[in-house]
Amino acid sequence: MARGRFITFEGGEGCGKSTQVRRLSAALEREGIEVLVTREPGGTWLSEEIRRLIKDQLADAPCARSELLLFLAARAQLVRKVIEPALVAGRWVISDRFSDSTFAYQGYGRGLPLDFLRMANDFACDGLRPDLTILLDVPPGTASARLRHREASRHQVADRIERAGEDFHARLRRGFAELAKAEPDRIITIDASGTPREVGEAIWKSLRRFL
Amino acid sequence: MARGRFITFEGGEGCGKSTQVRRLSAALEREGIEVLVTREPGGTWLSEEIRRLIKDQLADAPCARSELLLFLAARAQLVRKVIEPALVAGRWVISDRFSDSTFAYQGYGRGLPLDFLRMANDFACDGLRPDLTILLDVPPGTASARLRHREASRHQVADRIERAGEDFHARLRRGFAELAKAEPDRIITIDASGTPREVGEAIWKSLRRFL
Repeated sequence: MARGRFITFEGGEGCGKSTQVRRLSAALEREGIEVLVTREPGGTWLSEEIRRLIKDQLADAPCARSELLLFLAARAQLVRKVIEPALVAGRWVISDRFSDSTFAYQGYGRGLPLDFLRMANDFACDGLRPDLTILLDVPPGTASARLRHREASRHQVADRIERAGEDFHARLRRGFAELAKAEPDRIITIDASGTPREVGEAIWKSLRRFL
Repeated sequence: MARGRFITFEGGEGCGKSTQVRRLSAALEREGIEVLVTREPGGTWLSEEIRRLIKDQLADAPCARSELLLFLAARAQLVRKVIEPALVAGRWVISDRFSDSTFAYQGYGRGLPLDFLRMANDFACDGLRPDLTILLDVPPGTASARLRHREASRHQVADRIERAGEDFHARLRRGFAELAKAEPDRIITIDASGTPREVGEAIWKSLRRFL
């Protein structure tokens, strides 16, 4: 059986990733492709427990190094227990965030050394890399407005990372842009400031070469 | 103020580390030295939560890579929040396990690459290394007997790592011996098959050059 494809969605907070993950998954299934959707950090029982340690407003919040290692621990388990078995079984896997979030958040955002991040990430993934990455790019203003709307409409409270300062989010966006520039064959940048439908159509168009 | 000293205890399961940590701490305090005792994985709220994820008999037990990264995440937080501040304040720190356990268990025991372990561990510790490491060495038979006694007398159940096979524990012991051989100035091997008092006296003698 042909190995499945591994697609990841990346971008800053409020860029509309979760919505587009659902749309793409549904579109692929209409083409007869079996799809497994997951998210990071999370996707296994252990990884969801780790997610809680990273994201909750804890008295003992992880320091930058501990946070990175927790993200990688969650990823190692997810790759080993969920993603790799699904790909081997011929299913496609779509993940809401993956390695590029580590490079953008912990590298460009928190200033941890990128060389080390790449090596440690390769270890965590046992070498697995996405076949295609959709980077959803929105101007900072749009992202903040979406996050405020989300808080107001769903009574959700922004988590520790979503609340980091504007400066952090600007570094993040620059980081994602540099990652995309360095790997144009893998990372496709999509302007995500349109409606969900417009963004979904742009993604679908860019996926053609895969189908 | 003079920086405190950092002493770690290492050895396989059932070698008597916890007992000797308590004895040494009490002996140092009798000399007027302020001592902070900690253990790995653990020692901060976050690190104790991580300990639970590693050691409990979970349905979703961590794979080898995830396990390593969890140990390092717990260590990063412990170094940053507890050990380093204590040393800076002039206190001595004694830790029940530290980096050498990672090299022995995950490297020699589980076969993860030692080069990577050293690099990732240095990252987690932000370069901190023990000033002195006491390696308690007992023959495999003694260790098993002590573990059985512990289970019987305290109604404790051996955790996931303590229950690993005999072969694993033999690799572990060989691993610790190689680590000690490579760094004779830092790691002192103590024969721990005697009574707690005899072992405690041997440790105290080897500590003289520090006092």
